[in-house]
Amino acid sequence: MKSNETILIDHGSGGKISNQLVAQMMLPAFDNPILNRLDDGATLEIGNRRMAFSTDSFVVDPLFFPGGNIGDLAVNGTVNDLAMCGAVPQYLSMALIIEEGFSIQKLQTIVNSMGRAAKTAGVILVTGDTKVVPAGAADKLFINTAGIGQIPAHVHIGSANARPGDCILVSGSIGDHGMTILAQREELGFSADIQSDSAPLCHMTQALLKACPQVHALRDPTRGGVATALNEIAQKSGVGIQIEASQVPVLPPVSGLCDLLGLDPLHVANEGKMLVFVAPEAADLALRTLRANPLGAQAAIIGQVVDDHIGRVYLKTPIGGSRLLDMLTGEQLPRIC
Amino acid sequence: MKSNETILIDHGSGGKISNQLVAQMMLPAFDNPILNRLDDGATLEIGNRRMAFSTDSFVVDPLFFPGGNIGDLAVNGTVNDLAMCGAVPQYLSMALIIEEGFSIQKLQTIVNSMGRAAKTAGVILVTGDTKVVPAGAADKLFINTAGIGQIPAHVHIGSANARPGDCILVSGSIGDHGMTILAQREELGFSADIQSDSAPLCHMTQALLKACPQVHALRDPTRGGVATALNEIAQKSGVGIQIEASQVPVLPPVSGLCDLLGLDPLHVANEGKMLVFVAPEAADLALRTLRANPLGAQAAIIGQVVDDHIGRVYLKTPIGGSRLLDMLTGEQLPRIC
Repeated sequence: MKSNETILIDHGSGGKISNQLVAQMMLPAFDNPILNRLDDGATLEIGNRRMAFSTDSFVVDPLFFPGGNIGDLAVNGTVNDLAMCGAVPQYLSMALIIEEGFSIQKLQTIVNSMGRAAKTAGVILVTGDTKVVPAGAADKLFINTAGIGQIPAHVHIGSANARPGDCILVSGSIGDHGMTILAQREELGFSADIQSDSAPLCHMTQALLKACPQVHALRDPTRGGVATALNEIAQKSGVGIQIEASQVPVLPPVSGLCDLLGLDPLHVANEGKMLVFVAPEAADLALRTLRANPLGAQAAIIGQVVDDHIGRVYLKTPIGGSRLLDMLTGEQLPRIC
Repeated sequence: MKSNETILIDHGSGGKISNQLVAQMMLPAFDNPILNRLDDGATLEIGNRRMAFSTDSFVVDPLFFPGGNIGDLAVNGTVNDLAMCGAVPQYLSMALIIEEGFSIQKLQTIVNSMGRAAKTAGVILVTGDTKVVPAGAADKLFINTAGIGQIPAHVHIGSANARPGDCILVSGSIGDHGMTILAQREELGFSADIQSDSAPLCHMTQALLKACPQVHALRDPTRGGVATALNEIAQKSGVGIQIEASQVPVLPPVSGLCDLLGLDPLHVANEGKMLVFVAPEAADLALRTLRANPLGAQAAIIGQVVDDHIGRVYLKTPIGGSRLLDMLTGEQLPRIC
């Protein structure tokens, strides 16, 4: 990075340029083996327990959207990062940055949503902070959550643990959250047909990890979408990935809107879906376990891990072709979460 | 709070109105005994350990100031919240909200400062998040940190534990941080004489708590200043507090600038000072222990806890008078930390 460069929207996309910023700036400044693993959260040894610790800031615009608001999104986001570490989420912090003049009634609605989302996920919010900045110094409201959860002794998963032969599952339709936000922002009139999938995945992950010790890796495809998450797993695990395009569940209004706008649903953010990497002999059990949960009713096996084209993801198209599926490059939509 | 009201700068002051917002909106939404204690951080039982967990967002303006920048401030702020719980800070998270167009060179400087501050405090930064918002949606850079630390088995302190008879110490001169930021913002030309006291207090608290098991409460007087922190302790502990104005250390340029602007140093923010409540028989030992650390060289005994005027703080003035010292009401200076 040259010294006269400036931060671009793309640096926060969650895609390729975000990863470069982390690799070139953050890792050297804080160099330590826990951070260097770059999982969805950090894994810590505290006494005789293994704990996961994660944080996310939420800057979504608009604050209210079909399927949720910034408050439940902020709770579910950190809950899901902990769940992807295999942890049972337990404790959350909340830090608000509020623009002067913001409606107290709206804030109350958002805070109450956070309270309900925490209860649904089984976490308790134990500490917080509130900052108010003058009008114009922030756009309405930003929320940070950090969370702590315990990783059960029998769980040993990680984004470097995918192995050739593993089946790859997705827990439901993709792109719902991102296209919902986009439809709201662009006022495209599609809003009635789609809603955010914002939801806590922790109960489903716990059932899955209990039923299937053969699960090797979990990932929630938020910013950057399924394509970016798959590329990260391929690179960290040193494996190749093949995805069957025809097997990836996409709701018709989402695929219609993506077609219209020239977007690939595989690059669109999700807030209540996960990818599962599981040994092939347990793939059917994993699929049944996901489908037994309402949040996983549309789960599908979408591909497999191979020992070819290491670090890269290929997509088999319905007409028999195969193309490289890269991480998100260029930001489709700022402030999606 | 009426439904048509809006958030005021004062809601983020750390003073009386902030406390009302927490009491009326946050506590009902998240009601649980850990949050309800409202210490600087939460105290959690994890396995056989007691852990502290805390978060703060930093929105200071300007980002760079004499004595530090937003990066080391963000590390020290959370480190100090953990230290005030009696914990040994261990792990930090970092979440950045960056305005599009922000200088990568400045970001690198700030991130490097965070790395150095973490090393000084003995913590490791294990997880993070970066969001970029379009130009105008945030002012340059906001940083959230959350932290986890272990509370040694012999430590039992809390803001509800102050007892009549306790001596109250402050670890050094007050108001340095707040007046440094104000001097920078107002371009008053005082900047050469004062600098922020931003520093990690964790090494000093560990030495103090080891030497003096008779310490009952610690508090770092950040937003709202010493006066607000004392009022919070008085209310939570159900005691009265008397402070000797003449014993409170204030550097001449800070008191000069406060005089000029009509501010009370007791209401001005600190970022590297703490208040200590200790049983009277151990007060001299506590004072010597603080003074043995360079950050506590100017420590002083400034008052005592009484069983009179419960929940209120009185200030004895040098000419023999006594006046009520209230929490900060009205925000002196937004974006001080």
